Amino acid sequence: MAGQLPVSPLALPMPKLPPIAGVRLATAEAGVRYKGRTDVLLAELAEGTSVAGVFTKNLCPGAPVTWCREVLPGGTARALVVNAGNANVFTGAAGARAVEATAKAAAATLGAQTGEVFLASTGVIGEPLPAERIVAVMDQLKADLTEDRFAEAAKAIMTTDTFPKGATRTAKLGGVEVRINGIAKGSGMIAPDMATMLSFIFTDAAIPASALQAMLSKSVEGTFNCVTIDSDTSTSDTVLLFATGAAGNKPTEDPGQLADFRRALHEVLHELTMLVVRDGEGAQKLVTIKVEGAVSHASAKKIALAIANSPLVKTAIAGEDANWGRIVMAVGKAGEPADRDKLGVAVGGVWMAKAGGVVPGYDETPVVAHMKGREIELVVDIGLGEGHATVWTCDLTHGYIDINGSYRS
Amino acid sequence: MAGQLPVSPLALPMPKLPPIAGVRLATAEAGVRYKGRTDVLLAELAEGTSVAGVFTKNLCPGAPVTWCREVLPGGTARALVVNAGNANVFTGAAGARAVEATAKAAAATLGAQTGEVFLASTGVIGEPLPAERIVAVMDQLKADLTEDRFAEAAKAIMTTDTFPKGATRTAKLGGVEVRINGIAKGSGMIAPDMATMLSFIFTDAAIPASALQAMLSKSVEGTFNCVTIDSDTSTSDTVLLFATGAAGNKPTEDPGQLADFRRALHEVLHELTMLVVRDGEGAQKLVTIKVEGAVSHASAKKIALAIANSPLVKTAIAGEDANWGRIVMAVGKAGEPADRDKLGVAVGGVWMAKAGGVVPGYDETPVVAHMKGREIELVVDIGLGEGHATVWTCDLTHGYIDINGSYRS
Repeated sequence: MAGQLPVSPLALPMPKLPPIAGVRLATAEAGVRYKGRTDVLLAELAEGTSVAGVFTKNLCPGAPVTWCREVLPGGTARALVVNAGNANVFTGAAGARAVEATAKAAAATLGAQTGEVFLASTGVIGEPLPAERIVAVMDQLKADLTEDRFAEAAKAIMTTDTFPKGATRTAKLGGVEVRINGIAKGSGMIAPDMATMLSFIFTDAAIPASALQAMLSKSVEGTFNCVTIDSDTSTSDTVLLFATGAAGNKPTEDPGQLADFRRALHEVLHELTMLVVRDGEGAQKLVTIKVEGAVSHASAKKIALAIANSPLVKTAIAGEDANWGRIVMAVGKAGEPADRDKLGVAVGGVWMAKAGGVVPGYDETPVVAHMKGREIELVVDIGLGEGHATVWTCDLTHGYIDINGSYRS
Repeated sequence: MAGQLPVSPLALPMPKLPPIAGVRLATAEAGVRYKGRTDVLLAELAEGTSVAGVFTKNLCPGAPVTWCREVLPGGTARALVVNAGNANVFTGAAGARAVEATAKAAAATLGAQTGEVFLASTGVIGEPLPAERIVAVMDQLKADLTEDRFAEAAKAIMTTDTFPKGATRTAKLGGVEVRINGIAKGSGMIAPDMATMLSFIFTDAAIPASALQAMLSKSVEGTFNCVTIDSDTSTSDTVLLFATGAAGNKPTEDPGQLADFRRALHEVLHELTMLVVRDGEGAQKLVTIKVEGAVSHASAKKIALAIANSPLVKTAIAGEDANWGRIVMAVGKAGEPADRDKLGVAVGGVWMAKAGGVVPGYDETPVVAHMKGREIELVVDIGLGEGHATVWTCDLTHGYIDINGSYRS
């Protein structure tokens, strides 16, 4: 699949990600499913690396998610192994065996504990993962480990992604400059919670696992969990954050001291989130949906997601049609407090409708021009309170049907 | 739109609907939106006609829905006016005025009370309904009223429907044979609750409004409310059931005496429901989803709808791919009790997966053949209890994008 799809018109170039002290990466062609491309990533993490994770809320998670949940409380990580092409989901006992074999091989190769190996898989569901192919390249991966391979890592984890995704920031922590790099993959079967498919964040900061977890969980709520491509929630979604401590700062849990790091981490997650939306399957337009005036922030988010998940709204946007009737329909189906006669809808900054009807003298010229662009902004004013939320999605096009009607063939 | 779309490959011929004593119908070209086709229906109902109704749960309903809700408690009906092409939704005070003008004109023309006129509109949302065009043809409609016009009525209410929809049954009620005719329109923006868009049922039985309402509400739950085309819930969905009493049976509310009528009514609703699914926008396949073994019937229905609403399941079916991984994903995202390792999935009567993994020795040959057909059946066994439910949907194809990406253009 990947490589055969045309690159999304919303793609952005992969930024140059600098090395992160304490992180070494290698990729290989394991032949799990694809031919002629890398499909497995090994990350070696320095001793003492702390880890935080957030996973899919889908009740039928993949075996790697189950594995990560079990080892996460240990709080330390020495390795990450990711494969593309097979999600190792709904594979029963064979799936658990594949996970264990992979973790054991990585641990033995790197001299780590099995419980310090983190795993993630994406790709087809319901087919046994040939773990032996991953195990077979473990020595080669170890031999290839270098600090400067984030671009290759971002490529190796792609499935229907049409471009690799990465982001980087620096932050000040206890007077020391620390780095944060993130890579992500994801373009379909994406909806809260989780909205990410896979994302791996690496920092050289020294931060205890509990503080790391608190920051990651909070930031995911406002980034990956505010995205929907198709309302479908993956069984594999995983975000892992590794902090090697190699930057040499004094470890801290103090929220004040962590403020700048928290800002930088959030920026990395936000940037990766936007890249995932830009690569939504078949996406031609990046859509930002802002809901204001709801009775609460939670209510605003539900309404925003109802709009973002509506196939009729998404096809209208694909057709460059500012069809506010469908937006009103989606508000009404959200089940949240709303009053038809207080609603307002703006597209591209122009209020088309207010107080339940079309704005008198409404001129659709600027709205039509906005709809022809690549980045679409909808604002809905519920008119009832102070709750607000922003979510992101893409349009629903023939490309989505093409990609998903023939995924396994 | 209607008439330009290719007829659904799942279409069935419109059955011959016999006259219903006490019902006279007429259609006209009012030019509300379409040119060269009928777009308005007038039904005249005998004095003493009782009425029941079920409406959308969308919180932003159209003005005609608001109107019907207000007059329904009166319990009697003398007229029904339906127009296609403009839904009179999100039209503010102008919408309410249009509704009132239409009802007044129909009442004056037929010598009825305004509160005995029922109204329904479907079509584009957010544009003022030119009620004067409907009022202008009212005299012509009255002059054309005849008992034998159900086929024309079914055509006049179509929007993106590709074929007219009707069903008929007879029943015994107090020793008298009574007739039930139903027509329906609907092909997109369809999801519980309500799943029908518009459906109008006429019977010559004499049944008090309260008994009529109880039967209608219950039957809708298992028919129109078990359908989803695109997860989007219309702002206009309306089912109205009119009982003229012209058959001459003794009116009754006795459940035992009404049993045969209830059976026949349910059959009419079921048949109309299936016709709506067969005309799902872009539908190439009719999909039946049965969930069993859930912890309750309600839980089973939620899981079945999560599967039916999943764009990834629906595109896989369009691609004739028995991708059970996506079915498992959809079960997991429903949020209902489920255990990955107890799940079973059957397609076309063949169990592909049981107890959380692929069935040993699974031969996909008959499944592949089933997926190439027009009628697809999925069965999911949750493995936890006795709850079961059946819902219906269609596949998600390029046709859906074509229809909805350019609906207003």
